[in-house]
Amino acid sequence: MRVDGISYRTIRPLADGGVEIIDQTQLPHVFAPLVLRELAEAANAIAQMQVRGAPLIGVTAAYGLALGLRRDASSAALARDIELLAATRPTAINLRWALERMREALMPVAQAERAEAAFALAGEMAEEDVAVCAAIGDHGLALIADISARKGGAPVNILTHCNAGWLATVDWGTATAPIYKAHEAGIALHVLVDETRPRNQGAALTAFELGHHGVPHAVIVDNAGGHLMQKGEVDLVIVGTDRTTARGDVCNKIGTYLKALAAHDNGVPFYVAAPSSSIDFSLHDGMADIPIEARSPREVTHMSGVTEHGEIVSIRVTPPQSPALNPAFDVTPARLVTGLITERGIIGATEVALAQAFPERVIQGILSGV
Amino acid sequence: MRVDGISYRTIRPLADGGVEIIDQTQLPHVFAPLVLRELAEAANAIAQMQVRGAPLIGVTAAYGLALGLRRDASSAALARDIELLAATRPTAINLRWALERMREALMPVAQAERAEAAFALAGEMAEEDVAVCAAIGDHGLALIADISARKGGAPVNILTHCNAGWLATVDWGTATAPIYKAHEAGIALHVLVDETRPRNQGAALTAFELGHHGVPHAVIVDNAGGHLMQKGEVDLVIVGTDRTTARGDVCNKIGTYLKALAAHDNGVPFYVAAPSSSIDFSLHDGMADIPIEARSPREVTHMSGVTEHGEIVSIRVTPPQSPALNPAFDVTPARLVTGLITERGIIGATEVALAQAFPERVIQGILSGV
Repeated sequence: MRVDGISYRTIRPLADGGVEIIDQTQLPHVFAPLVLRELAEAANAIAQMQVRGAPLIGVTAAYGLALGLRRDASSAALARDIELLAATRPTAINLRWALERMREALMPVAQAERAEAAFALAGEMAEEDVAVCAAIGDHGLALIADISARKGGAPVNILTHCNAGWLATVDWGTATAPIYKAHEAGIALHVLVDETRPRNQGAALTAFELGHHGVPHAVIVDNAGGHLMQKGEVDLVIVGTDRTTARGDVCNKIGTYLKALAAHDNGVPFYVAAPSSSIDFSLHDGMADIPIEARSPREVTHMSGVTEHGEIVSIRVTPPQSPALNPAFDVTPARLVTGLITERGIIGATEVALAQAFPERVIQGILSGV
Repeated sequence: MRVDGISYRTIRPLADGGVEIIDQTQLPHVFAPLVLRELAEAANAIAQMQVRGAPLIGVTAAYGLALGLRRDASSAALARDIELLAATRPTAINLRWALERMREALMPVAQAERAEAAFALAGEMAEEDVAVCAAIGDHGLALIADISARKGGAPVNILTHCNAGWLATVDWGTATAPIYKAHEAGIALHVLVDETRPRNQGAALTAFELGHHGVPHAVIVDNAGGHLMQKGEVDLVIVGTDRTTARGDVCNKIGTYLKALAAHDNGVPFYVAAPSSSIDFSLHDGMADIPIEARSPREVTHMSGVTEHGEIVSIRVTPPQSPALNPAFDVTPARLVTGLITERGIIGATEVALAQAFPERVIQGILSGV
């Protein structure tokens, strides 16, 4: 998408052999593209969360492996580099999946051609991600266009939580793809951006990307969405998902469930942008089956931002003696989900609808004994 | 309540003629009692929010008026001082009410005795507030004791939102009164303290007062409560209220409604500590009738806290170009409220129950043509 009129992707190979990313740890205060030239730099970018978001982590690892193979394309190096990259974010399933795909494709390739093949495959994976997000965008666009027509062209008010934006993918984003597509189509929009405590991905990343692309928006605290829905000021909710089960339970950033409850209570449609890669057909009951990561209490007790002197600092907002609890995700039961926006269209959050849309995934599950 | 073993109230007259408050703008980072000696200092304390919370503002204004009368007890001064104090927080109904009560009582008093009478009445108003909060505490204690018995003495997990604590009243608080009473009674408790963005009254004030009084607690982000209820980790929700209607709709800090929805969805009892002074019998439909204040966007875009060097600073957490919206309150419909804990007992959030408990208020309303 665009940053002040210039088109960017979150990752792209440069003509000089480097790979450009955006250092997301400095957003929204500093927009700092950064060039990776070595495997170690790519590994560090993933570990330090200069890049984040499942799709982007996978593609960054693929490019990182390609950078490594340029130095040493032996099978031993390939195996070693894969382990090194996989260890940077041990719980990121997408990372492991991307690296296994690279291994399978590259092992049969002659050593002299491996680096080039790796760059080509990393590029292919990036394009696949862009295509999936663009398809989600096109399907979601239809929803927004309908509401816009019903409102006679008045701005469509869309609430989103966390950052399932282009910064979390290669381009377009998942939850934001319909928003960008609608904006490109000239539909009047206003996006309500949940701050998304404790890590503030909404206030920091979603607000940044919408603002710099030129999409009208406002940041709200996570507490405000229910009230705005009661007042009829939200037409549609679109969120992303970290993991969706075979029956449509949606695991996403903590707080998503509260917005789904409010949407349900006020008759506001609640959609989840769910690329099929995020659907886990081996799980059914999201509340029982998905373990929820407890992250550091420091994310709750401290907050970072920029002082009036332009210095980025971290401050403590709680009394020093007070402990904090920090569950990172919650599960929204399928009954509260109006629909899933997938790359194959918008489908109901039900076992039948999911199986109809992705039969090969169900078969795959049965064959692998799930 | 206690701060590190020493008993405090939020306001108390000193033997030397001054009136001690706690400068709440510095909490939770600095605990700074402060002595008011002049009317202007009291007015400033209210305007600068060194004292906040409806009951405490009213009592501070009463003491402020007494300080003023000590300098000049003429009827002209009395009228002028009342206007000056009323203007410090123009929307605080309690402030105006307390000052009118002072005017009515003091006008008939001889000039030479007015200051003394004013101090006496201010003290009476403080004691009345303490008695109301203590009664709410005793009624709420029974609820907590029941849950404790059902759990065989395992800690009762109570979630609260914002600060309806002793810092907002003269002592005990409203939502916290049952918690302190249960703690004094030796019942094992654990309080989940909603951070309460944007002004962080939970993280700053509720965590401070519970921690320093010795009540086990943990701060959570406002997004986390729904998930914790899904996991069975919340036995009871108790919140305060800024204004409750004749049929039991509850206006309280923004985000309260989301917690009420989650409590309802998970079968968790949701109680509102509502002193009768906060019940407005002239209003019925809370969603339609209560105007919601939109406060400064800066409360959303900026946050204050303490750096690792001990300096209190304000930081910006959003991109500079991004606007913010800041509705300060929301309304929880009566259907989501399990009960109201009043000074006259726990009653249903219904028109009939409220009229039965406070018949004189209903009559008063009819007589005044409401």
